[in-house]
Order: sequence, then structure tokens, then C-alpha cells
Amino acid sequence: MEDRLKKQIDFIIEADKLKQIYRQNILLDKSRRETDAEHSWHLALMAILLCEHVAHKNIDILRVVKMVIIHDIVEIDAGDTYCFDAKAILDQTKREQRAAERLFGMLPPQQKEEFIELWEEFEERVTPEACFAGALDRLQPLLLHCNTEGESWKNHGITSEKVIARNKGTKEISENLGILVDELINNAIKKGYLPK
Amino acid sequence: MEDRLKKQIDFIIEADKLKQIYRQNILLDKSRRETDAEHSWHLALMAILLCEHVAHKNIDILRVVKMVIIHDIVEIDAGDTYCFDAKAILDQTKREQRAAERLFGMLPPQQKEEFIELWEEFEERVTPEACFAGALDRLQPLLLHCNTEGESWKNHGITSEKVIARNKGTKEISENLGILVDELINNAIKKGYLPK
Repeated sequence: MEDRLKKQIDFIIEADKLKQIYRQNILLDKSRRETDAEHSWHLALMAILLCEHVAHKNIDILRVVKMVIIHDIVEIDAGDTYCFDAKAILDQTKREQRAAERLFGMLPPQQKEEFIELWEEFEERVTPEACFAGALDRLQPLLLHCNTEGESWKNHGITSEKVIARNKGTKEISENLGILVDELINNAIKKGYLPK
Repeated sequence: MEDRLKKQIDFIIEADKLKQIYRQNILLDKSRRETDAEHSWHLALMAILLCEHVAHKNIDILRVVKMVIIHDIVEIDAGDTYCFDAKAILDQTKREQRAAERLFGMLPPQQKEEFIELWEEFEERVTPEACFAGALDRLQPLLLHCNTEGESWKNHGITSEKVIARNKGTKEISENLGILVDELINNAIKKGYLPK
């Protein structure tokens, strides 16, 4: 096997570990927590289906899909940082940058650069593609929480204020998705899944 | 929420069930079997990384990624059909067509058509995009088997003849990936993971 392909295959094998990183969300059948790989797949499906709702008309959907497919790979080394864990968030960037360097560094140089760029773009949330990917990354767990009676929110004592703050950027990238997020949160409060 | 978005969200929620469909492959840490959602994510990552090895220069990589993201969704209704289960394969097409009609039928008409088309294209293996997606769908479990001492092959009494036949199309879409497949199978035989 040529060296370039070997590097790619070694990375693909290493990436299997994303199936062993469990998130705080539970699956809709409540059988277990969701893995990062499953979450990333779900975001890719959502990106394909929901891109028509983005205000920017020339959004590069392949770029969005690439971002969501790779956005959590750093968690193989850095672990899943729960978005509402104020302490863990403090050194999250440092841990994840180190992880990106090691993990994406397994790839041939050009692909390493491409993946680091995609990951940094996602983290910075400036381009329309990154804003859309970021909105999906918040909407997907919201959908899961709203369809599991807010079990994970309750376990962590999360209030609506925090959920509203976390999803506030969505309406800037898509009016329709912004309305959806408001409806989901209001409904969750009304049903008692999320304390006000 | 407008009706079109509601249909899309209902489908996205239904698709969560792909995380509950377990395949015959085991994860590299051998902790459990892989889910369809994880497998689909892994294929998307491979498509992005390995498309340079495809002989056709103008391959539409977004189309490949869409195909691998949705290719197993029919298994929510039809279940996972083990590729070496001769009996289950007999009515697989019928079961999966019914599943495609119900599941993709949840989407707005135009997206239903797009997803049915993508899924049928994937199943037919005629276009370069479908041939590449199909080759990845065979290469990914091969990589898992070769890195778990062929445990799943052994459990099902699979011989090298069957694995060679299943992967024989790969060299037509990519010389490099064809060589890789040959190396992986030969190595598995040599190490005793796969009986000759």
C-alpha cells in the first residue's frame, strides 16, 4: 500500500474511536446515550435536508457536511465536553487544539491542513457554512431532549435560560429554524421538561 | 411551524432509529456491535478522504456523501440484512422498497423523490458515484474485521472466497483501493482471521 493511502487508512481506523465517545443526550428509545459518530451522522442528514431554510442562497452544502462529519473527531483525545459544564469548558479549547494536531496530523499534509481549517471554521462560527453547521449542532440535541421528556436536562438541572442562550444564534442563519427552536423550547417549558 | 419543515423534522426524528439498528460488525474496542448510523458516518468520512483514488476525475463527491448518509435508512423498517445470509437476501429488495416508500414518503414530495433516486442509484451500482459508495460500503467492514481478528467472520463461518467475491468490484472504481482490498484479505488469511 502506498504511503499516502496508508496514512489515510490509519486515520480512518483511529476515527473508529468516535463510536466510543458517549454524549449526554440519550437516544429516543432511551436505551443508552448517543455516540459522537451517531450525532455527526444525524447532523449530516439534517444539513442535507434543511439547507433550503438558510438565508444565504449560495451556501456550500458539501463544506457544511464535511464540517459536521469531522467536527467532533477531536473528542477522541479531548473527550466530550458537556456544553453546560462551566468548569470543563475552561480548558476545552486547549485540549481540543492538541487533539486536532495529533489526530488530523495522522493524515497526509494537505488533508491535515484541510481538516484543521474545516474544524477551526466550525469552531469560529463566522462563515454562513459554519453558522449553519453550528445551529444544527444545537438543534439536534434540542430535538432529542424534547422527545425524551427532557430527561438529560433534568439530570443536569438545566434551565430554559441556558437553552435559550445556547440556541440564540439560529434565527440569524435561518428564520424558519429560529421559529422552530422557539417553538421547541416554549413547548418543553409548557410540558414541564425544562424549568423556566 | 410550516408544514414543509414539520415533515422534514418528523423524518429527522424517525431517522434516530438508525442508531438502534445493530450490524454484524463489532467496534474496534470489541465493546459492542456497530450501529447503522455509526457505519454511515464512517463511510461519509471515508468518501471525503479517499475520493482522490477514484479513477473518474469528475466524481460528484456531495452525491456520494448523500448516498452513504441515507443508504441504510430503509433498515429502520427492513432490519439489517447480513450480506452473507443467503436466505434473508431473497426478500431483501421487497422489504427495503416498502421501507423506502414509507420512510422517504414522510418527506416533502421533491425530497422524497431525491432520496428514493439516491437510494436506488446506490443499490444499482452503475454510476461512478454509486460504485465508489458501494466499494466503501464493503471496504469499511473489511477494515473492522481485519482489526478485530476476524471475530465476526469466525462467528458466521465466512470464508475468503465469499469476502473476495463481495469486494471484487473495488478495483474497477479505484486501482489503489483494489490493491488495498487484496492486501487486507491476503493478510487476514495469513494471520488466520479468515479461512481460505
